[in-house]
Amino acid sequence: MTRKELIAQIVKKQSFLCVGLDSDITKIPKYLLELENPILEFNKRIIDATKEYCVAYKPNVAFYESRGMQGWETLQATLDYIPKDIFTIADAKRGDIGNTANMYAKTFFETYNFDSVTIAPYMGEDSIAPFLCHEGKWGIVLGLTSNKGAFDFQFSELTSGEKLFEKVLRTTAKLGTIENLMFVVGATKAESLKSIRKIIPNHFLLVPGVGAQGGSLAEVCKYGLNSDCGLLINSSRGILYASTDETFSEASGDAAKKIQLEMAAILKNELT
Amino acid sequence: MTRKELIAQIVKKQSFLCVGLDSDITKIPKYLLELENPILEFNKRIIDATKEYCVAYKPNVAFYESRGMQGWETLQATLDYIPKDIFTIADAKRGDIGNTANMYAKTFFETYNFDSVTIAPYMGEDSIAPFLCHEGKWGIVLGLTSNKGAFDFQFSELTSGEKLFEKVLRTTAKLGTIENLMFVVGATKAESLKSIRKIIPNHFLLVPGVGAQGGSLAEVCKYGLNSDCGLLINSSRGILYASTDETFSEASGDAAKKIQLEMAAILKNELT
Repeated sequence: MTRKELIAQIVKKQSFLCVGLDSDITKIPKYLLELENPILEFNKRIIDATKEYCVAYKPNVAFYESRGMQGWETLQATLDYIPKDIFTIADAKRGDIGNTANMYAKTFFETYNFDSVTIAPYMGEDSIAPFLCHEGKWGIVLGLTSNKGAFDFQFSELTSGEKLFEKVLRTTAKLGTIENLMFVVGATKAESLKSIRKIIPNHFLLVPGVGAQGGSLAEVCKYGLNSDCGLLINSSRGILYASTDETFSEASGDAAKKIQLEMAAILKNELT
Repeated sequence: MTRKELIAQIVKKQSFLCVGLDSDITKIPKYLLELENPILEFNKRIIDATKEYCVAYKPNVAFYESRGMQGWETLQATLDYIPKDIFTIADAKRGDIGNTANMYAKTFFETYNFDSVTIAPYMGEDSIAPFLCHEGKWGIVLGLTSNKGAFDFQFSELTSGEKLFEKVLRTTAKLGTIENLMFVVGATKAESLKSIRKIIPNHFLLVPGVGAQGGSLAEVCKYGLNSDCGLLINSSRGILYASTDETFSEASGDAAKKIQLEMAAILKNELT
């Protein structure tokens, strides 16, 4: 999906919500466990209930990979079930030397037909560049993550005066364009978005950490929106597990709609 | 596999060679392509030819994952084929927030029964710790990698006086023990091993980059060996693709034996 197409979807749906399909067999409604593929059934119902309100789905690959063959089959079937006008993100956080990074790009862009993959930056340019040369496909590089461990290395002060995550953003931005490169920037440090937007004013940011991890939508938008919106805000647990009874998908749809309405109000105020 | 068992294997075989099973369908001998599962047949022949000379096998997961279901089946069948007294490394370079890191640990330690997994450190403690609480299992954290991109971030000078990779080693070493934690340290910067051994004198190091990537075995051993050996030296392409005709596995066995003999001589000189 191109940037233009993504922005068109955001305008049409008045939403920049990404639903994280971190579907956990221990957390989904118990009655689904009797079905042949509980995770797939869960995902289908979540997708049916939320597809009006979101512009992206982001399965975290760990949740599928950990279930072996059936997990990968479920990932493929889930991807097939997602409407074609919705952006798809393989949250895989891959990163390896050049020839191997090529293999990972091939996995998610060809073997599976995702629009984008998340990438870990520690190994530098040759681990990132192979994701940025596939037409209509995107690399989404970890800049600043939303977990506690983000403070261990990402905020390290460099002698250049930057923090490590700032160097990662600045260096990586040169490897791609705003048409094929996004960054993960955690919502739990919304104020950091102010300095981040100075480094990468025009890139789309994928923002986890709103909701269960404590980030505020209004704060993120205050510092992170740009003239093309430029944000995909992810919510996983808050939508997936809004309820665990037989009406769970309605509760998930309501949770997604609630966020979409907030987003519509923000887009109306900020972008007009 | 415990540290004691690994060391016993090194002493017994007079080898600290790890064979990287980065088996690439475009590089294996053409006549294998007629068989039902060419990669598995290739791996079995490589394992038969090299198992006397090495103490570890390291399939890079990208090479399997990129082939979809058949790839994962091949990875499982390859793992089943590796003799039980040989250490196994899933070179997956995973890294994600705590609950997701748990899923990845489950994937490689339970769904598959690897002895160890490589881990990307960018997301910090909660992305690493879940790999360090499984008895007899190991996390192998990227310290200094052997690729060109290693210079982009890993050598960043911090205001604390350290380089980033040194901080990663020092900080991560506190999360585990020498019984459950190793580090990846690339051979292309063998001199760096001198300062690295000051930070982590006793940990095992997994060293890629000897051979095809230009690192020297003698140099690595000079700076990296400790009293328990403390090194696993990986070779992939130099062994796998030593020849591409029908006698390829003999050539691979010869290449592995050549390295093992060099290692035996080093162990004799250095550790006695």
